Order: sequence, then C-alpha cells, then structure tokens
Amino acid sequence: MAETLIKVDLNQSAYDNDKLHNRWHPDIPMVAKVKPGDDFIIECVDWTGGQIHNNDSADDVRDVDLTKVHFLSGPVEVEGAEPGDLLVVDILDIGAFKESQWGFNGFFSKQNGGGFLTEHFPEAQKTIWDFNGMFTKSRHIPGVEFAGLIHPGLIGCLPSKSMLEEWNTREKALVDTDPERVPPLAALPYAETAHMGQMSPEAAKTAAAEGARTVPPREHGGNCDIKDLSRGSQVYFPVYVDGAGLSVGDLHFSQGDGEITFCGAIEMAGWIHMRVKLIKGGMQKYGIKNPIFKPSPITPRYDDYLIFEGISVDEKGKQHYLDVHIAYRQACLNAIEYMTKFGYSKAQAYAILGCAPVQGHISGVVDIPNACATLWLPTGIFDFDINPGADGPKQALDGSVDVPLSKDL
Amino acid sequence: MAETLIKVDLNQSAYDNDKLHNRWHPDIPMVAKVKPGDDFIIECVDWTGGQIHNNDSADDVRDVDLTKVHFLSGPVEVEGAEPGDLLVVDILDIGAFKESQWGFNGFFSKQNGGGFLTEHFPEAQKTIWDFNGMFTKSRHIPGVEFAGLIHPGLIGCLPSKSMLEEWNTREKALVDTDPERVPPLAALPYAETAHMGQMSPEAAKTAAAEGARTVPPREHGGNCDIKDLSRGSQVYFPVYVDGAGLSVGDLHFSQGDGEITFCGAIEMAGWIHMRVKLIKGGMQKYGIKNPIFKPSPITPRYDDYLIFEGISVDEKGKQHYLDVHIAYRQACLNAIEYMTKFGYSKAQAYAILGCAPVQGHISGVVDIPNACATLWLPTGIFDFDINPGADGPKQALDGSVDVPLSKDL
Amino acid sequence: MAETLIKVDLNQSAYDNDKLHNRWHPDIPMVAKVKPGDDFIIECVDWTGGQIHNNDSADDVRDVDLTKVHFLSGPVEVEGAEPGDLLVVDILDIGAFKESQWGFNGFFSKQNGGGFLTEHFPEAQKTIWDFNGMFTKSRHIPGVEFAGLIHPGLIGCLPSKSMLEEWNTREKALVDTDPERVPPLAALPYAETAHMGQMSPEAAKTAAAEGARTVPPREHGGNCDIKDLSRGSQVYFPVYVDGAGLSVGDLHFSQGDGEITFCGAIEMAGWIHMRVKLIKGGMQKYGIKNPIFKPSPITPRYDDYLIFEGISVDEKGKQHYLDVHIAYRQACLNAIEYMTKFGYSKAQAYAILGCAPVQGHISGVVDIPNACATLWLPTGIFDFDINPGADGPKQALDGSVDVPLSKDL
Amino acid sequence: MAETLIKVDLNQSAYDNDKLHNRWHPDIPMVAKVKPGDDFIIECVDWTGGQIHNNDSADDVRDVDLTKVHFLSGPVEVEGAEPGDLLVVDILDIGAFKESQWGFNGFFSKQNGGGFLTEHFPEAQKTIWDFNGMFTKSRHIPGVEFAGLIHPGLIGCLPSKSMLEEWNTREKALVDTDPERVPPLAALPYAETAHMGQMSPEAAKTAAAEGARTVPPREHGGNCDIKDLSRGSQVYFPVYVDGAGLSVGDLHFSQGDGEITFCGAIEMAGWIHMRVKLIKGGMQKYGIKNPIFKPSPITPRYDDYLIFEGISVDEKGKQHYLDVHIAYRQACLNAIEYMTKFGYSKAQAYAILGCAPVQGHISGVVDIPNACATLWLPTGIFDFDINPGADGPKQALDGSVDVPLSKDL
Repeated sequence: MAETLIKVDLNQSAYDNDKLHNRWHPDIPMVAKVKPGDDFIIECVDWTGGQIHNNDSADDVRDVDLTKVHFLSGPVEVEGAEPGDLLVVDILDIGAFKESQWGFNGFFSKQNGGGFLTEHFPEAQKTIWDFNGMFTKSRHIPGVEFAGLIHPGLIGCLPSKSMLEEWNTREKALVDTDPERVPPLAALPYAETAHMGQMSPEAAKTAAAEGARTVPPREHGGNCDIKDLSRGSQVYFPVYVDGAGLSVGDLHFSQGDGEITFCGAIEMAGWIHMRVKLIKGGMQKYGIKNPIFKPSPITPRYDDYLIFEGISVDEKGKQHYLDVHIAYRQACLNAIEYMTKFGYSKAQAYAILGCAPVQGHISGVVDIPNACATLWLPTGIFDFDINPGADGPKQALDGSVDVPLSKDL
Repeated sequence: MAETLIKVDLNQSAYDNDKLHNRWHPDIPMVAKVKPGDDFIIECVDWTGGQIHNNDSADDVRDVDLTKVHFLSGPVEVEGAEPGDLLVVDILDIGAFKESQWGFNGFFSKQNGGGFLTEHFPEAQKTIWDFNGMFTKSRHIPGVEFAGLIHPGLIGCLPSKSMLEEWNTREKALVDTDPERVPPLAALPYAETAHMGQMSPEAAKTAAAEGARTVPPREHGGNCDIKDLSRGSQVYFPVYVDGAGLSVGDLHFSQGDGEITFCGAIEMAGWIHMRVKLIKGGMQKYGIKNPIFKPSPITPRYDDYLIFEGISVDEKGKQHYLDVHIAYRQACLNAIEYMTKFGYSKAQAYAILGCAPVQGHISGVVDIPNACATLWLPTGIFDFDINPGADGPKQALDGSVDVPLSKDL
Repeated sequence: MAETLIKVDLNQSAYDNDKLHNRWHPDIPMVAKVKPGDDFIIECVDWTGGQIHNNDSADDVRDVDLTKVHFLSGPVEVEGAEPGDLLVVDILDIGAFKESQWGFNGFFSKQNGGGFLTEHFPEAQKTIWDFNGMFTKSRHIPGVEFAGLIHPGLIGCLPSKSMLEEWNTREKALVDTDPERVPPLAALPYAETAHMGQMSPEAAKTAAAEGARTVPPREHGGNCDIKDLSRGSQVYFPVYVDGAGLSVGDLHFSQGDGEITFCGAIEMAGWIHMRVKLIKGGMQKYGIKNPIFKPSPITPRYDDYLIFEGISVDEKGKQHYLDVHIAYRQACLNAIEYMTKFGYSKAQAYAILGCAPVQGHISGVVDIPNACATLWLPTGIFDFDINPGADGPKQALDGSVDVPLSKDL
Repeated sequence: MAETLIKVDLNQSAYDNDKLHNRWHPDIPMVAKVKPGDDFIIECVDWTGGQIHNNDSADDVRDVDLTKVHFLSGPVEVEGAEPGDLLVVDILDIGAFKESQWGFNGFFSKQNGGGFLTEHFPEAQKTIWDFNGMFTKSRHIPGVEFAGLIHPGLIGCLPSKSMLEEWNTREKALVDTDPERVPPLAALPYAETAHMGQMSPEAAKTAAAEGARTVPPREHGGNCDIKDLSRGSQVYFPVYVDGAGLSVGDLHFSQGDGEITFCGAIEMAGWIHMRVKLIKGGMQKYGIKNPIFKPSPITPRYDDYLIFEGISVDEKGKQHYLDVHIAYRQACLNAIEYMTKFGYSKAQAYAILGCAPVQGHISGVVDIPNACATLWLPTGIFDFDINPGADGPKQALDGSVDVPLSKDL
C-alpha cells in the first residue's frame, strides 16, 4: 500500500492539525515531499472541518461558520517542479474512512451563503447520505440510490505571489462595486479564522491578511467542484512555485453539475490516493492557463437521461440577455416541478439535483436573447420509472419523509 | 417508406414554397394532417433558405440577410391535439439529400450578428463540410473527421395568441433597455421579409407585424439548438393550439454544445422522419413548461475527452460574478489556444468547437465569485493524438490550409 | 454523393445481374475499379436473391434453395492492391432501399439447413420486420422495437488459387467423416446453381465445380456474420490476389451474436457506402491471418442488459467437456424460457435472440468440465419492464399474435 | 460500516479457518446468519489458499496442489430462504486488503492443469500485478495499465442433496469415457484435501467423499468466472436448501472473457461487501435454472477495441464443425501474434488476454462448418498506440523483461 503522507483525526479540531490549511498563500510551508512517479495517500477532513453532523437537524447547516472553509491537506512538494511546468496528477482512488461511511448535503440559509435557488429555498436544510460500498442513499429521500462519482471538490497548486495579488485585486474590485451586499459578491481575505498550516505565528499573521479564500475556482483549479474530476481521472495542473505545493480537500461522494445546493455535493471526510509526474515547461508548450483533464475510465454509467430545458426568461417572466445562469436555473426548476409529480417534496428534488450525477449542459448561447441550458436527470438512480407516459405519473412516495429544515434564528 | 408530407426544391426560392414559413404565429394555416401513431417525412431547406453556397468564399456569410431566417417546414396538424397536451415526437431518422451531401459553418461579421467569440473573430469566415455516409470532414480543416450527431436545430409547435403576446412583450421590454444597440438585444417582429406560409396576403400582412422571429428558443422549444435532440431521440412538446402545428427546420449534421459559432452548426438542407403521439393533458400531469426529451440510443460514441476549464474572469482579467457565459467563453478560448499548438489556426479551432460533438458543462455555479464551465473536446475526431505528453505537442498540420475570410465591406 | 458502382434491380433475377456472384473463386472477373482513398456505393440483393417475401407465410422459408446463396456484389478491384497487403475498408454507411423498407428473419426446417436450436424449432417459421427510419419492429412480435445495428453479413476479398484449394481440401475431409449426414457437415462446391459473375460460360463451367461456397466464414472474412462489423466500423482485410477483389452482400438490419436463427439476422436488400485504402505488406507487418477490425463509433446504445448463463450440460442433463457451443445453447434456452413468462411464444423469443443486438460472451473456457457462456439481453428493446422483481413477471402480451409456421411437406 | 461476518488471516492456513470450505455439500454448516435487506462484508483468501507468492519465480505455480482449491468463505444463512426462491445479491463493493495490494496470474504446466492454450504454453509461468488504487500493472509486462473490473470468480448457494447427486453422476459419466486422461475430463470428489468447514470430523469424512469439487460452474453459479459479475452488479441465485447458504471466493482484480490462462485472472485475497434480498418462489416465476444478473453501472470504460476473428479451423489447418472453442482459440492466437509485433513476448501477450478486460464474443455459430468467434482487445490499456497504420507497428518494448518460467521437474 502506498504511504499515507498526511493523516487526519476526525475527533480533533482541524486547526490543531498543522498539515492542513484553509487559505491560499505561496509561503505556506510544504508538509511532505514526493518525487515524480511516486504514488501516495492523503487524508482529508470534510470541507467544513467537522461542523456538520450525522443527525436529523439542520441547525448545524444553519449555524455554519463559512469563514473557516475549506480545510485542505497539504501542500505537498514535488521534487523538481518549477513554475511553468504542468503537474500531472493521476487520481488513483478516493474513499471514505471505514468509521465514517456517510456524507451530508444541505442548503444554506439565504442569510448565510444561500445557494443557486436560494430565493426558492431560503432556509437551512440538510440531508444525510449513507454509503453502502460504492453506492449511497439518504434516509431523507426515499426511492433513490446510486453509485458515487467520487471526486475532490478542491485541488490545485499554491499560487505565486503575483498570482495571489492578481486574485486579491480583481476580487476586491468586484466587491467594491457593491460593498454592502449580503451575501457579498466575493469572499475577501479574512485573517481571524485563517489556518496557515506550518507557518510561524508571526509569518502567519501577515500572510493570513492576504491569503486568498478557498471559495472560488481560479487559474490553479482550486474549488472547481467539477464532478468529472473523479477517481481515475488524470489532471494537468499549472505550477506557479518551486515544488508545486499540491493541496487537496473538500471530498465529494457525488455531485451534480453546478453543485447547485452549494452545501454542496455529498460532502465527506476521507482519503485520496494520487500519483504525480511532471511535464517540464508544459504550460507554454500546451498554452495552458487553467487545468485540463482527462475523465476517468471508471465512472458510474447512468446513461439513460430525462432532459429538461431552460431558457433565460426568469421565474417572473422577465427576459434576460443570453444568461446561461438563469437558463440553467429554469431547467433546474423545471426538473424539480416534474419530480414533485411523483411525490417528492421540492426540497427533496432540489437535493437530488445537487447530489446525483446530473449533467448541466450549455446547449445554446447565441440565439438572442435566450440562452438555452439543459439539465440531464439520470433515470437509473430511481427505484421506480420516472419517465413520462400516457397514463400520467404514478405516485411513488407517500410523503411521510422530508428534508429537515431549521428556521433562521 | 413513410409518406413525404412536405417537399422542397433547393433550386426554388423558399418564399415560393407555401409549406414553409419563417415566423411563429398561431394563425399560420396547417399544411398537412397526421394522426397519432403516424410516421411521416418532412423535407427542409437549410436555415437561411439557400443563401450560403458550397464554395471557398465567405462573401455569402458576410452578406447574409438574417431577417429572413429560419425557414421552417410546416405547420403539421396532429388530429386530436389540444392545448395542454404533450406532443410526443420520435425522431426516427434525419438525412441530407442525395444531391446535397454537404453543409456549412461560419462566423458572422460582428456587424451582422456576430457570435459567441465575435470580439476575437470579428469578420465573416466560412467552412464547408462534405458528408461521407455518416461521417463528415472539411477541406478547410485538415486532420478532423467524425460521425454526424444529426439533429434539427429548430422544432416546436405553434404558440397560442397569448403566448405570442407574452414573447413579444418581454422581448420588446429587453430591447427597450438599449434600443440603439448593435447587434440588438433581441430580434423583434419584422414584417418585410416574413414568410407566413399559406396565409392569405391580407391576413399575412397583419400577422407578419406581430409574428415572432424564429431566432431564440422559447417555451415551445423552437430554436433550442440542442445537439442531443438528435435522430433517435424522443421529445415531449407542449401544445398550445388545436392540432398542435408542428414545424421543423434548421437541420444540423453536427454541432457542439452552445453552437458557439452562431452560423452555426454544420448547417444543411435535408429531410426528417418523425412519428407522433399524444399525452392528453400531459402539461399539467407532468408540470411541463418547456419541452423535455430522452436522448437517442444511437449517437456517435466519442467518449474520450480532453476537458478545458474556464472561470468567470474575462480576457482582460476582470472579475465577473458567477457568470457562466464568460466562464464558458474562457474554456473555449483555452481550448482554441491548445489546438493552435498542434498547427491549427485559431479560426480552424473555433470552427471545430462549433461543429464537432463538443460538450459544454455548467460545472460550478455557486462558488462566489467564479462560475466554472468546462468544455469537453472529443479526442477521437482527430486523425492524430491530441493528448498532452511529456514530449510536448507534435505539429500535425503544415498550415497550408485555412478558413476563408471575407473582410467587411 | 459517391458513385454507385454496382446497381441491382429487385425485380430481376440475381442470375441476370452479371455484377453479382455466389461462389468464391480467384478467376471471377472484376466488375469495377477504384483507387485507394476512393469512396463508393455498392447495391446488394438480399442473401437469398429474393426468395423470401414480405408476407405472413413461412412457405418461402421452408422451400428456400440454399445452394443458391449468398449473392454477392463484386468483385471490386482496388488499384495497386497485391497479395500480402491489408485492404482497409471504412464502412461509411449502409441502408435499405426506399422502396424496400423491410427485412425478414426465419428458422429453416430441420430438413433444410436447420439452425442453432433446430431440435427445439424443427419447422420453418418467419418474421417480417418493418423499418421506421433507424428503428425496426415486427408485426409478428409485439412489444419490441429497436435501432438497427446495420452491417454486412458477408464481406471479403477473393481467395488465391492456393487458398481456395486449402478450403476445399479441408472441408471435403470433414464431410468425408460422415458423408451421409443430413444436414451435411459442410457445403461443398456445387456447380448447378453457381453464379460466376462475368466469367465466360466455358470458364465458368470449370470454375463452378471448384468455387467455394459462401456459407462459412474463412480466412478472408467472408460470411463471418459479426454484428459489430457495422456501419462506421473500419475493417482490415487480407489481400490474396492482385486488385484485392472486394465483394459484399448479405446485408443485415440487425443481428444477435451467433446469428442463431441462421435465416438469420434481419435480412435485407440495400446499399453499402465504403471507402478503401491499403497497408502495403500489412499482413506480415501485423501478423494478420484473419481480418481485424475496429468497431463503429455509432452503434445503438442498448447498454442495460439482463444476462443469462449457460454451462456445457445439455438439455438432457448430459455432461460435455468444455463445449462452448452447448453452453451458449443453454444460455439461449434459459433466455427463451424467461421471456415466455412475460407472454412471448418460444418462437417469438427465439426470433428476438436472432434479431436484436444480443451479445454472446465466452465467459469461461477452462473450468473443467463446464464451459460457461453468457447471453446478454438488452432490456431497452422492450416496451415494458422485463427485469425480475419481487412481484413476479407481469404478463405484457396477450398471445394473440405469433410467428407464422409452415409444416414440412 | 457494515459488519464483517467472516474474517481471514493471510498468515494462517486456510484449513485452520473453520469459516472456509473447499467443497460443495448441503450439510456444510452455516457460519453466519443474515436477514433480507442486510448488507455485510466477507473476507476471502485467494483461490489457492496462499500457495502463490509475490516473487519472480513460477515454481509455486508449477507446484500448486489443485486438489485444494477453491477456498470459499461461507456458507451464510439467509433468514427465510427456501428452495425455489431467488436470492438477490447486490455486490456493493470488493477490494484487496491494505496489506496485500497485489495479485497473480499464471499458466499451469500442461502436466498440472494446463490452460486454454496449453499446447502453446506448456510450462508454468507467472506474472505479478501490483494494485495502485483502482488500477493495476505488472512488473513482468511493461506498457500496460488498467482499472480493475473486480469480481468474485466463484459465488453461489449450497446445492441440495439431489442436485449434488446429479452433478456427481453426470461428471463421473464423462470421466468414465476416458478415465486415464491427463488432465482428467472432470474433477471428481477427492476427500483427502477437502475442507468441510464446521462439519464434525466424522460427518466431514463421509461428506468429503461426495462433496463436489469447486472447479466447474454449475446450475447454482459457482465457479462461473464471469468477469462482468463485478462490483456493482446484481445477481439472482437459485436457492436449493433452507437458508440458501451463500459462499464466495476466488476474488479477481480483473479478468478477460474465458479466463483463458486458467490461473487465471488476476487472483487476489480480499473482501466483498454484499446486500441480500429474496424473491420468494422466484425460480418458477421466472423460469430460472442458472443464475441471471444485471451488470454493474460502474465498470471500467475501455470502449475502444481492436477486434480479432477466429474460425474453427485449428492451428494445423484441420477443419472442425462449428466449434466455438477452437474458433476462440484462433482469435486468441491471432491477437497474441499481433501483439508480438509491438515487442511483447508471446507469454506476455497471453497473460494480457487472461488479465485485461478483454471480451470474447460468440459471433457466428450457424455457418457450417465454421464457427466464428471474436476477441475484443481494449486499446486503452496500452501506454502506446496499438492500432494498425500505414507505417507498420512501432516497436514499443525493448524485450528486456519477460514472464518468469519454471521448467517442469
């Protein structure tokens, strides 16, 4: 078995593990070192660092402190890596811990982060998903079971100083256009809850004030939340600092395109087994700005889909100009409405779209004024036949079970 | 062989064929009648009605009159269809005419419609694609051949009067926010070039002034340009008028998600073989607002992809807020840059993204401020290995061939 | 459109078309000539040369003259092809004629050819399949519709004189082990019904006496009846004579692995569109004895299967030694028995296994004394759910329709 | 995490673990009990019970004692199961032990079991495969790496007394047709090395003399060695005794169709996670004799194949009558010959066919006298391009590494 370079203890505070960090900064010290060709295992806490629990209350989702996320494991130094290289990462496998065979999905309160459909689901809700081998189901959503398309939500290399500055500058500029907005337009550096890994306390203090938050995906990959970056895939990451500094976290047992529930996928703690190599000077050779990747040969084959369209006319009938965001929202709402005809609550349907291997396609972006997006709902995840037919939908659920909700305080 | 209900003559003006029309209006007379369970064939001109020719000049793309598009065949009456029903359409097959085994793709001039990357490709360009059985290749883009994912770009039922009004109202409201914009924010009714099918001249005059343009996708489907609505798929269309009034056109031999080149896919004239049935009252039974569909069991299997990420930071480095449109544009630009390393011109690469069965996924839409979109480039369409490797890209093309361009006049 | 090199007239006797032949012999004159890189179309009669008709009687299947089969179109000369080369054939497309949108499947009488399960189905039966675009269904088998995996049952190059001698010698030796057997162990040359193409009458007389029958697959490919050699695939054929001499026929709209009904697949007349090129000296370069091929990127995606096992213990309980033939027969019988529980007659079930894109896998061949074979029945071809469940099978058919049968005379 | 019902110690003799057994007999006592709906884990030794080691000598393969195989874990009692029921088994996951991340493949000496191609590979050889997460590669076969299609080679329920008698009777009858044959035609009961689980010594003595060997697949499934019975699949097993008595073993990390190397697949010790339920009276309801199953939604997607044909003319040119066994052997030999052109030794190529997810199809079984079988070699398992091309094969390997061989003593 490959060596486990970073270990975590789920009973320990993430802040007490100095091989974790929750900000991006070039000066965070490397915590392990590997050579090209090596394979190794890294353990990860869940993205919130254990704030969410396996129970039937959404209080913890309501009360989550989002300034603390995401806790990443690393950075790992790769011998010989230099700025301009491509770091090739084979994701050999990912799993949950034996003693922690569950994950969570939730909707944040609109007052605390919200989500893609926060206007429709403004209060905190939570579903728990149990893992049975490669499959998962939720006690809060009957009639659905599927194999995990397991992947890291967040992975990438340390930014250089200049890249960090660029991030901070452009995000600050955006926030400045509407500084009082709730929620804010971007998550700017926030020192108080920063975990700067093995930096000395003094160095950490300064760095924390400028360390980039982990929330958005950026040039290095980061929190891209791409469900297809799954175990078995091969990823090519840009390198910005000597040694690369690969960090990873935010493991997902499964997620739909868009991670629309924001909290998020089926979130879990676990381990990831990777192998690294280098393409020297690969960024220029291949003209790479953002990571590229090859999908896994081993992904769940839910290939029969029911596909919902959405266009960029919003819920109130207002016409928008080629807005894919709104078009995808309509496709999601259309799918939710459809699922309710089989007995799901809207919250259950929303959670399914966030958790199951749903595809979201940008189908048309040029036919003014309507963008067209499609949501692909895999039919094989349901215990019953969810296809339309001449006889109309057959109620498959009795409505006795719903998704826990916690009112705002 | 099923009956051909509507025939076209490619040597005739589309205006002289009274079984075609190029506007949406509830009063356009039905031109043929079928019963539930029937299958039948409908012939279609290309979307421009023959404005683009099989040659090596982009003059026709530059000079196209976009007020004339799209020429549709229909409407076809389905016996017993009533508002509120779902019209189930099995797309049994689609093909080009024996004597017209080619299609075109182009970029419109920024002054005349533009496209998704019009800032980068501001002038008219055109590629011609020859069909060889189920496969296509272009004399303007060496090294690429692939099987067609053949589909109608535009298909749907006639709107009711109230729906038509809703369309016109909301699109006018959008245009009114910036009425002088070039290109305009939406394509409003335009009587001069309207073809109102078999309406009497007087009735047509009035109706043309309010007939909706065919450009955008809307609730009825219409110009959704979804590449996966391909032959073999099964589509459920909302019905708004007695008899449904199914019209179809804008056939594509192949297209990438987004139809980013706008002109558009590999556009062709041809025929479509369909079978219809009804789900009475299906719109309410299933809560349907936009069409839903099941993909075909017989689509080209280009399943090995190279995937490019894009985030909502634009080409100038400006940060946008969860803008999938911009994120997808970055993913496209990243893919174009990559392909140039193998010898393609940027225009060739752009055309490939518009024509080949490229997927565009909405990967992340909640991680403020960056949306994340991915572009999936199928590797099997290339004659050579386009994957990254330690040795760097091997120049596969000598640059002797490029995409014809016609300067603005 | 590519040129049609060989045309057929379905109202004419196959013997009257001198671009057809029904025996393999190196001296059959080439009927057309192409160059490497060319693509072209060849028309074909059905394998029996029109002996079977679109009606509801199996008399024609019972009375078929099997000495006349298979009528092939060709041979086509490929410029520059020499013995030892590989002839690369891209199968660009295949289709039925517009005026002949149907095919047939049958079981021969045990007295006239029989089939894989002839002990169980000893009398002639026939099903007719109508084509609806890319799909087919049979008025004799309700509840089943599927897309065609269209392919040539028979394709290959002319044998050399020495190869022909080898064939005749080894097959004669086999027949000689049991010369009185009915049916015979092999189909030896038979001059009377031979069609030797454009050979002069005198030459034909001699050649017919030694021309190999077209029944079995051999080193050159020939009647391999491989369902996956479908349109879109790329085949590498050994070349034995100057000019290669490519002939093709026995087109199938669809077939299951094994072509177990013998008559056979869904048999049809139609056209095939091909493109050829050469790998000079390819047989030795790649160590090729039999053809190799790459499957098509465009095959029907019926990927959900119900899989039946069979072992080499026969219907009477007798143990055989690692006999895959018997094991596959058991798997087929198991599948037939299963399908009867949903209302199919055994003949209908047998026909489905012969016609639908069923897979037959050689699963285990070393675990003495039982070989293990599996039959993969695609569930998506049925209108109803054919999976097992706790409630037992739901009768889906009323038994009012069955497969026509004609008693032996 | 589900409970582990049966544990194994890889340092202990399999004979010392009373929850294992290596013969089939209705009286073997149940070692654990579960209820319908339960999921649980069972650990397994490798099929030989640890006779083969992770080293570079084939001595252990040469000297293996095949009377001891296969060591199975079980039987497990399922509450409420009765003869005539179907036991539905969801294979939720399978894995190797953390401390035993490797497997072996070998060819037995012709004097001790042999294999499918034993005439060509008459001496003992062995390859060791290391597991890297979901992937495997062998230090004895460069240039190949692939994801595991992990499955149990052997699984099924206890036979009833009458079924056991039927097995013994028919297999004895076969052996009696050639009792002196080496290797024998079947593996008859053999008391000396029998492990009868928790039977009392006296009872075991009698039972061992009639307990069926585990070598062949039979009506209950057993050693079917079907690669597609993989993790994620759902299997329906006939039940013959009260409590069902489910046993499992012979775990494979990967295998090609046919398991042609006999020793066999990539053999490993490990654990299997299953969930069971019952279909009462299911055997009759569905007409089930042998197990049926649904393949997994999560199997490695090596979908690009190079396909080799074989016909039933043997290596010496002798014609056989519709013999699929011989046809598949020719297809295998053709594939081996092809692979040598890229630098593999024949032994390496043979091992690849035994280990990789190769498909073997029964393509034609009615075209007298030649059966046609196809071997599907997945191209994606190779580090280099193994497709044919105009330039001929590019030597990919330097021949410095080969498969260890141990001469017969």
